[in-house]
Amino acid sequence: MPKRSEDYSLWYNELVKKADLAENSAVRGCMVIKPYGFSIWEKMQAALDKMFKDTGHSNAYFPLFIPKSYLSKEASHVQGFAKECAVVTHYRLINSPDGKGVIVDPEAKLEEELIVRPTSETVIWSTYKTWVQSYRDLPLLINQWANVVRWEMRTRLFLRTTEFLWQEGHTAHATRQQAIEETERMLEVYAEFAEKHMAMPVIKGYKTANERFAGAEETYCIEALMQDGKALQAGTSHFLGQNFAKAFDVKFATQAGGLEYVWGTSWGVSTRLMGALIMAHSDDEGLVLPPLLAPIQVVIVPIFKGKEQLDTLLGKAKEIKDALAQKGISVKLDDRDTQTPGFKFAEWELKGVPVRIAIGPRDLENGTVELARRDTKEKKSVLAASVAEYIENLLKEIQEGMYVKAKQFRDSNITRVESYEEFKKVLDGKGGFVLAHWDGTGETEERIKEETKATIRCIALDAADEQGKDMLTGKPSARRVVFARAY
Amino acid sequence: MPKRSEDYSLWYNELVKKADLAENSAVRGCMVIKPYGFSIWEKMQAALDKMFKDTGHSNAYFPLFIPKSYLSKEASHVQGFAKECAVVTHYRLINSPDGKGVIVDPEAKLEEELIVRPTSETVIWSTYKTWVQSYRDLPLLINQWANVVRWEMRTRLFLRTTEFLWQEGHTAHATRQQAIEETERMLEVYAEFAEKHMAMPVIKGYKTANERFAGAEETYCIEALMQDGKALQAGTSHFLGQNFAKAFDVKFATQAGGLEYVWGTSWGVSTRLMGALIMAHSDDEGLVLPPLLAPIQVVIVPIFKGKEQLDTLLGKAKEIKDALAQKGISVKLDDRDTQTPGFKFAEWELKGVPVRIAIGPRDLENGTVELARRDTKEKKSVLAASVAEYIENLLKEIQEGMYVKAKQFRDSNITRVESYEEFKKVLDGKGGFVLAHWDGTGETEERIKEETKATIRCIALDAADEQGKDMLTGKPSARRVVFARAY
Repeated sequence: MPKRSEDYSLWYNELVKKADLAENSAVRGCMVIKPYGFSIWEKMQAALDKMFKDTGHSNAYFPLFIPKSYLSKEASHVQGFAKECAVVTHYRLINSPDGKGVIVDPEAKLEEELIVRPTSETVIWSTYKTWVQSYRDLPLLINQWANVVRWEMRTRLFLRTTEFLWQEGHTAHATRQQAIEETERMLEVYAEFAEKHMAMPVIKGYKTANERFAGAEETYCIEALMQDGKALQAGTSHFLGQNFAKAFDVKFATQAGGLEYVWGTSWGVSTRLMGALIMAHSDDEGLVLPPLLAPIQVVIVPIFKGKEQLDTLLGKAKEIKDALAQKGISVKLDDRDTQTPGFKFAEWELKGVPVRIAIGPRDLENGTVELARRDTKEKKSVLAASVAEYIENLLKEIQEGMYVKAKQFRDSNITRVESYEEFKKVLDGKGGFVLAHWDGTGETEERIKEETKATIRCIALDAADEQGKDMLTGKPSARRVVFARAY
Repeated sequence: MPKRSEDYSLWYNELVKKADLAENSAVRGCMVIKPYGFSIWEKMQAALDKMFKDTGHSNAYFPLFIPKSYLSKEASHVQGFAKECAVVTHYRLINSPDGKGVIVDPEAKLEEELIVRPTSETVIWSTYKTWVQSYRDLPLLINQWANVVRWEMRTRLFLRTTEFLWQEGHTAHATRQQAIEETERMLEVYAEFAEKHMAMPVIKGYKTANERFAGAEETYCIEALMQDGKALQAGTSHFLGQNFAKAFDVKFATQAGGLEYVWGTSWGVSTRLMGALIMAHSDDEGLVLPPLLAPIQVVIVPIFKGKEQLDTLLGKAKEIKDALAQKGISVKLDDRDTQTPGFKFAEWELKGVPVRIAIGPRDLENGTVELARRDTKEKKSVLAASVAEYIENLLKEIQEGMYVKAKQFRDSNITRVESYEEFKKVLDGKGGFVLAHWDGTGETEERIKEETKATIRCIALDAADEQGKDMLTGKPSARRVVFARAY
């Protein structure tokens, strides 16, 4: 494994592959999510899905394909999404005349090309038109788990892939206020998921006009900090105003007897969260997973010489395994006799298992086991009889400890700067989030981006009013915004 | 609602739409699965996913796109699947010169076209090549939940759609025997799911060569009977032999030191099961759902005049709701004051809720409630104090009763015939499964299909040895096979 300090980017790529999370496929930019990686994603999905349902949403499924003309119906949406798309033009293959393989049947050309969905606002709002007639049909609170495709030029496993998995919520409301509340509610859900489940602190804010979702009136986001000092947008929640309702003519009869356009939101997180999870916590030995998302929370490794000793240890090991399983802790007993304990230790460290139990002949005599925490690497001898209770608490402690550590790192990497010189110095030095004054114009934002590669990640929801001057233009500013170089 | 006896096909289509299960989308042949329909599919997914995991499988995710050349690598596979496919030829849209909308960028043509997966054997086996080196890497037991696309000419909601949702298991094994055992194990899983969860009896068997999966050595299947006497293939499990291992050069080092091709299986069920569920049980009033797959198992409808009476009833209704919820029963209290009880009764009947509780002022006085079973339409007065226990048992009784009823129907619609005349008479009369002798040739099978539209659904696993003569050709036959007209 390369070290983070030597080549963070290489470290990330190698870790994703070596820990069996994902790999590149033969199809450019498309990844294969391997079983171990997918089991982490399943944990994320389960937690998020529950949170969505607890806030009143239902799942549904809409078509993979979008008629080309749909993309053009919302003026700014088409500029944002009708660019790098996978386009289906034909619907049949035939045997090639030379007898080798198949070719596209030129006779089977579609009248209108279909786009593989890069996001589903258009196909969903065209459906909502028939679902919404009256105020009684509102709110419509729907989520979809799906694959989407954006033809990215430069791809990286999980962070930016041509095909990725995500969820996209699409809601419709009777009033502007209700739609804004929904947008904010889902931002809170994302922030809570990031902090409680991923142990990853986030800044909640909203995007500048330049960075807004194409078709939104406001884009809220959560921004996380990776260990290399770069920011990562971990989730977005969009207030769509009446833009898509107008584009697809979705009106409703109000209680008062009028006819009005519906208000919309959309919100999503994707397999990109896997990249965030990896980069927020892992170290040079491998993954560090928060217990709530770890497919295996505890691994038991017997330390033995010869089959007889193994058999003696296995009885105790299974007892501990059962005691843990009874508490709902997911536990693996690594009883392979083809690998050394050292090999196993390294393997489970690489895979980020939060707690390791080692048990050898002397432990058996003493009625103890040795516990090792993956996050702090602390080791401790614990009475075997009470190990299940101990670990139950320890997992909570690790979950909390990982969040505290990540938050300390994040907080110590938020820097207030007063000048453009200082701004550039911080970016090139420690990195992280930089709080600076900005004059509110797209031009200044663009110029800073070109000159420093830093973007405005968001205007934090809790940003204090503070009169100041734009660090570049000297024009007045009412509050600081959050800059960073970002993934 | 049309009646089943008048127009079964129209009844099905209307039911799917009226019960809010699914509808056609603007994209030809692609459906929208609505929240209520999707929540049934989620229940199916959860039960199946648990069964897959309990039998040692892990989920993973492979690319949506398949390079065109991959489809040609397995000779019979290409004939079966490289036909009606969605073909991606371009990866960019640009603004149209007339300023109206977008057009496909002719510059952005892919070097090799990509096919939207109709099934994933090729892309998965191309990946397995790098995952399998040694016998220690086997078996590889992987499942994927995904969307697939087959460009069907005639589509019907759930039963045959261009895009559908499914799971596809893809496993790799060291020996022929292990692969066959896996194929059979997953057939058993499907049969158990159909019978225990869907309350739908199935015949387990294997397909004739003509009906085999393209690329398989043997295709096992479960076949169910719909209420109109037509059969429906509800799941398939394929023994792939070494066909895909050879096509993608997947070899492994054996324990003995040799190098051999891997043995494979694949198996799948899809949203087609939704169609089977609907057609197996529902009646002229609407859906009839087995309790294990019902998103709402119990609905409580207060019978009231005026708001005051409603408020009085709601206290008791909520008490019952809580008691049911505490037992893990999913319950809905329909306290709308905008609809009459009659309207609500019809609505929840249409949606197939297994048990309805009605509670009115007289019930409140008597300490009773009125229960109505959706499947038998029986009504019964029950003491409110013990209604939760009663319903807990009732749900099991309904689940079992629906299976027994479906099995009686199925069994009474299996007919043994001795002549071709009789065969045709049964098909045109009662329909159902017809057990007849067949000479084992594809020609005879094809001729029967052309003349009668009946196909050999399977050779049942439990078919007894029985010497006989093919009903058409008079040639010898060793056992009867299962014919039917089918979806």
